[in-house]
Amino acid sequence: MLTNQRSQAIAQELDSRDPLANAKDKFFLPKDLIYLDGNSLGPAPKAAFADIEKTAHREWAQDLIGSWNSAGWFELPSKSGAVIADIIGAQNDEVVACDTTSINIFKALHAALSLRPERNVIVAEAASFPTDLYMVEGVASTTQSKTIRLEGVDAPEIETLIDENTAVVLVNQVDYRTGKTRDVGALTRHAQANGAIIIFDLCHSAGIMPVELNQHNVDLAVGCTYKYLNGGPGSPAFIFCANRHLADVQQPLSGWWGHQTPFAFDQSYSPDPGIRKFLCGTQPILSFRAMQAGLELTRQYDMREIRKKSMALTDLFLSEVMNFAEEYGVGLASPAKAESRGSQISLTHDSGYEIIQALIERGVVGDFRTPNIMRFGFAPLYISFQNVADAAAILKDILETEIWRDPRFKQKSAVT
Amino acid sequence: MLTNQRSQAIAQELDSRDPLANAKDKFFLPKDLIYLDGNSLGPAPKAAFADIEKTAHREWAQDLIGSWNSAGWFELPSKSGAVIADIIGAQNDEVVACDTTSINIFKALHAALSLRPERNVIVAEAASFPTDLYMVEGVASTTQSKTIRLEGVDAPEIETLIDENTAVVLVNQVDYRTGKTRDVGALTRHAQANGAIIIFDLCHSAGIMPVELNQHNVDLAVGCTYKYLNGGPGSPAFIFCANRHLADVQQPLSGWWGHQTPFAFDQSYSPDPGIRKFLCGTQPILSFRAMQAGLELTRQYDMREIRKKSMALTDLFLSEVMNFAEEYGVGLASPAKAESRGSQISLTHDSGYEIIQALIERGVVGDFRTPNIMRFGFAPLYISFQNVADAAAILKDILETEIWRDPRFKQKSAVT
Repeated sequence: MLTNQRSQAIAQELDSRDPLANAKDKFFLPKDLIYLDGNSLGPAPKAAFADIEKTAHREWAQDLIGSWNSAGWFELPSKSGAVIADIIGAQNDEVVACDTTSINIFKALHAALSLRPERNVIVAEAASFPTDLYMVEGVASTTQSKTIRLEGVDAPEIETLIDENTAVVLVNQVDYRTGKTRDVGALTRHAQANGAIIIFDLCHSAGIMPVELNQHNVDLAVGCTYKYLNGGPGSPAFIFCANRHLADVQQPLSGWWGHQTPFAFDQSYSPDPGIRKFLCGTQPILSFRAMQAGLELTRQYDMREIRKKSMALTDLFLSEVMNFAEEYGVGLASPAKAESRGSQISLTHDSGYEIIQALIERGVVGDFRTPNIMRFGFAPLYISFQNVADAAAILKDILETEIWRDPRFKQKSAVT
Repeated sequence: MLTNQRSQAIAQELDSRDPLANAKDKFFLPKDLIYLDGNSLGPAPKAAFADIEKTAHREWAQDLIGSWNSAGWFELPSKSGAVIADIIGAQNDEVVACDTTSINIFKALHAALSLRPERNVIVAEAASFPTDLYMVEGVASTTQSKTIRLEGVDAPEIETLIDENTAVVLVNQVDYRTGKTRDVGALTRHAQANGAIIIFDLCHSAGIMPVELNQHNVDLAVGCTYKYLNGGPGSPAFIFCANRHLADVQQPLSGWWGHQTPFAFDQSYSPDPGIRKFLCGTQPILSFRAMQAGLELTRQYDMREIRKKSMALTDLFLSEVMNFAEEYGVGLASPAKAESRGSQISLTHDSGYEIIQALIERGVVGDFRTPNIMRFGFAPLYISFQNVADAAAILKDILETEIWRDPRFKQKSAVT
């Protein structure tokens, strides 16, 4: 390996003391791959394979329609929701898994607006994951709400936008590009002090750090399960609504599964009085069943241990990279302090795309985000300190040899 | 078997001349089961198992994030949409598979309203599948649209509700309870003559009869793939929009996947100019891949042959049942003429629930719908005439012996 002796020793020492070291065995990880893209798509928990096979061969093929009851398909959104609730610090009856994050943002925004009928401003982050902003546009087109966006990502700035006209604030706990975290408690208190409802997007935080929605009195939240929760490609998203709001909130995606009595075939809609009012249509059962192993796996571990290792992983990567960053024109897009970032390190380089391609060829998978960001996600359940030291050493070698200038790494299309 | 000699002979004769007889081998069907519930959940095509395994073990576990390009995940909604387009008589670039039927109804209604901004009446069927009505309510709550519902299911009645105020008409090609069909061409012409946009819900027609959306100049359509298209439990739904409307229609579920340049991470939403503007969030890949075998399988067959067999199957069942129906208090909820119904026969009986349970115990799977309807779906690709004769004979035996009065068949909960 290219890692220098000192780095090797540090990594070995940290791995030897890692209480989460064995979790890695619960995942299928391709041989010789250092997978630093779990913030985009998590790897497969080994237990998921048996669940998928059982769902296909037994539940669908053999038991057919009877599986709605016998295999508990009808309860999957609540059952998976309860596991997610444990992971994000909510009550079991405050979360359902369903649909996509985008669709759930639409529901959450409408739910928030239904609680603040006299207000009409939605505050969202300019630099947030674009689908959040796109859904704000969609909601604004179906209401009389005005939309305000923040031009910048610093917490003090978004806080200045929140006032007595603000109906709802939609923010990410962790910024998808930089990994910068928001103070969930402080921002919730500030929004609520101004009479606004707050929605957190947990796509880049659920599974790698404590969220503690109830402790911070959060109103609504959404998130996906295919990143750090390892639920499989495009696995169902989730939505959280605090119990205190459940009786009052309304959302317009009023499909059969959100009905109070879905099998009565009533002609008019009466929402379920609880969290199931956020359900809509028939859910993709295979993707649901594939998701469960990842959720159960994460729930087994202490989220404080996960966070502790997450910070140590990103600290090690950063300290290794900082040894050579300036020399090769590499900048840091993530906060320097571990407490202020999620489980990723984002670096900048004018040839970031090519460098990421060269890294992938060498077995280190990160990803590129326009215009110049190289993202590296460090999922504490399957990334070792040795992986981190090796990834940093391979990055250094690629920069040193300038192999990334090879034409085969050149960007060919807009799809990255 | 209980079937009388004459019925046996008829069934054998029909099976011997059935050009679709071999299609049955392409499905996994549980031993000794006569599955007449494909109108609720279709059985597993054998080819789906390999696709599911490949997606889990190879695409997700081994190739990870790279599969978005290498396994064509990003193209799945269009690729599956093109196969569905072939089945329902549309152009390949007029259909995408995505989300759920309920969500797609929401998009389609908003799209229709965006084409008729000066109108504000939605006409829908009172007796349609309830989620259609629930979504109309949801859409009405997010627009200034008034909602009108029809109290009845007869085509002449719904036609009288359509006038110069009607923005959009939402109807099912096949009624889920009775199996009654609508004349797609005539109703489309009538709606359009009044300046209205028409949306067809194809949940109970796609895969068992010609739909011919383009031939009939239909504006929009939605449907599911887990019934007669055998896509698997909760497999993705689809949405069709005629090419002539694509440039103009808008829909508010404006997630990243519907963006013109989804990987540019623009801060504002610019919809794809084509059918992909109906996409929203990240789709459930396992459920998508499981669906493809069912779609490809149906596409292989001539839809006119499928319809011909479908009518012959329901005709045979009806003629067998009519021999004993009156004696045992069984009524007919479906149209008596094959041309006027989909691929189902719905019977009525005051103890319909118990009779369905007794049938299931005897290996004949139909389903019950409140208040008194016994539904039997006859999917031409895997149901034989022998199955039909046997099912009718077993139903007769259950009625004759009154075994359904046994307490073990009594309804225990509202979930059927």
